[in-house]
Amino acid sequence: MKRIAIDMDDVMADTSVKIIQCINERVHSEYSYEGLITSSSEEKQAFYDIYMANNDFLWEPGFFADIPVKTDAVEVIQSLMDHYEIFIVSAATEFPNSLKEKLTWMNMHFPFISWKNIVFCGHKHMISADYLIDDHENNLKTFTGTPLLFTAPHNLHIQEYERVNSWLDVKSRLLS
Amino acid sequence: MKRIAIDMDDVMADTSVKIIQCINERVHSEYSYEGLITSSSEEKQAFYDIYMANNDFLWEPGFFADIPVKTDAVEVIQSLMDHYEIFIVSAATEFPNSLKEKLTWMNMHFPFISWKNIVFCGHKHMISADYLIDDHENNLKTFTGTPLLFTAPHNLHIQEYERVNSWLDVKSRLLS
Repeated sequence: MKRIAIDMDDVMADTSVKIIQCINERVHSEYSYEGLITSSSEEKQAFYDIYMANNDFLWEPGFFADIPVKTDAVEVIQSLMDHYEIFIVSAATEFPNSLKEKLTWMNMHFPFISWKNIVFCGHKHMISADYLIDDHENNLKTFTGTPLLFTAPHNLHIQEYERVNSWLDVKSRLLS
Repeated sequence: MKRIAIDMDDVMADTSVKIIQCINERVHSEYSYEGLITSSSEEKQAFYDIYMANNDFLWEPGFFADIPVKTDAVEVIQSLMDHYEIFIVSAATEFPNSLKEKLTWMNMHFPFISWKNIVFCGHKHMISADYLIDDHENNLKTFTGTPLLFTAPHNLHIQEYERVNSWLDVKSRLLS
């Protein structure tokens, strides 16, 4: 059975939606996920400059507890489990408060995935799998299997990887 | 640079010492680590039966916070880092309260190991490394590199793996 490693933030969870909401609260801006997706590269860079200077909320208790689930993620991942070994692999050890919250989030939204198949790490290059679905190039570029780039506002400019825009795209790619 | 994956409990941390202390408090027994090491297989089994029926303390906040560090672990792991890529790989996702405590413990005793090189997981068979130092056969038997069994009271009967009895043994094996 082939193995798929699946990232959490901006792949299973709409983390950018929560980040944009937190940034708007901190700096009284009016960014939106859809606006960021369609904005110019200069506008995106302006947002990420603000984000890098105001992202202390990532370390605060509660940030990761109530992030919305990506559309179709539950149904497609449940279907993938009939054909693949699934590991959830989240780069989370930078955020000590996130770890228990991410486990609780997984149990709430993906109760069919065992704690045995959840991995919290920093680097991902020691993960052995056939596929990695991730939104960050730095995780995909060191992966030894087939990388799949899950579309997020911060990766629209990247051309080097096969791209999936949604969980229905993942379903077509891996279950057809 | 070759990669070593190192388990935490009963390899870097004297977890069995803390477990024995907790069991003695719960059932008013007088077990000791040294006594358990030298006891018969029947006596060991009697202890592990009591342990399996009274190990709820593993899920309680605080259990993993103050476990003693194994003798020579700090110095030998620091030396290994000059010659190997080191990952700490702890089967911890079964214990949600342990995760932040284990990160804090690592920062306290092994501040030279980055969060980027710490992995909390359930299964370990998707970890790719050249060596795995672990006290549990179920982790070693699915490992694709060279397994090294770190001696603990519960694995003295296992003959199938190369054994290291201490961190000075690890130093001799990997730095000679």
